[in-house]
Amino acid sequence: MKRTSRRSDCPINFALQTFGDGWSLLVIRDLMFTDRRTYTDFLGAEEGIATNVLADRLKQLQALGLIRRRGRGRGATYGLTEKGLDLLPAMLELVSWSARHDRHTAAPPDFVARIRRDREAVATELRTLLSRRHGL
Amino acid sequence: MKRTSRRSDCPINFALQTFGDGWSLLVIRDLMFTDRRTYTDFLGAEEGIATNVLADRLKQLQALGLIRRRGRGRGATYGLTEKGLDLLPAMLELVSWSARHDRHTAAPPDFVARIRRDREAVATELRTLLSRRHGL
Repeated sequence: MKRTSRRSDCPINFALQTFGDGWSLLVIRDLMFTDRRTYTDFLGAEEGIATNVLADRLKQLQALGLIRRRGRGRGATYGLTEKGLDLLPAMLELVSWSARHDRHTAAPPDFVARIRRDREAVATELRTLLSRRHGL
Repeated sequence: MKRTSRRSDCPINFALQTFGDGWSLLVIRDLMFTDRRTYTDFLGAEEGIATNVLADRLKQLQALGLIRRRGRGRGATYGLTEKGLDLLPAMLELVSWSARHDRHTAAPPDFVARIRRDREAVATELRTLLSRRHGL
C-alpha cells in the first residue's frame, strides 16, 4: 500500500485497505482452510472470482507481504507468509460471527463449537499445522 | 442480504459480503471505539467517506441488522445492535494485527498491549460498556 493512498492510520482502516475489497480475504481463506494453492485452484472456488480480479489480488497480496509465490507460470503455487498467517485469530472470529448470524452458513458446526469452547487451543494448533504446510 | 446475491455459504464470504466493502466496517468502528453517533459525525471521520456512500452503507447496515437508528432526519442517532456488537472480538483481532504490521498505525499502544495480554478481559469489559452505551 502506498503511504499516499492511505485514508487514515486507523488500524481497522488499515485492515480494510489491505484486504477489505471483497475478494482478497477469500484467497487468504483458501490458503488457510483449504488445499487450494494455485491460480487455477483459486479460480475454481465457489464464489467465482473473475480471472483478471484474481490476478490483480494475487499481485497485491504478494506486494503487501501476505502471501508468497513459488515457481512461475502455470506451475506456480502460493503460500501464506507470517504476516498472512497472523490473520488466523481474526479469521476464526469472523467464522464464529458468521456461523452465529447466518442461518445458511456452511461453517462446520464442530469446528465452530471448538473455536467457541477453546479458542486459544484451536488457534495454536492451526498455527502450528499451517506454519508447517506453508514452509514457515 | 438477498439470498440470491450470495456468492457462497462460506462464513468468511458471508462476513465479506456483509461489511467487506471498504467502508461499512468504519461505521461499526466509529460506533464501537468513538463517540460518533450521527450522520454528520460519520461524515467527519478522517477517511472522508462520501455522503452518498455513507447514506447507502447506513441503510445497508440497518437492513442487515448490525446497527439501528433512533429518531429521524438531522436528529437521528445510530447505535449497534447485538449482531453488530458481536463483531467486537473480530475487531479487536484486526486492531492487533494492524498494530503489528503497520508501522504508521494509530492504534494506541496501551490498548494493543492489553488486547494481547488479556484478550478475554478486554472483550468482556468493552462488551459490558458498549451494551450500556448502545442501550442493549
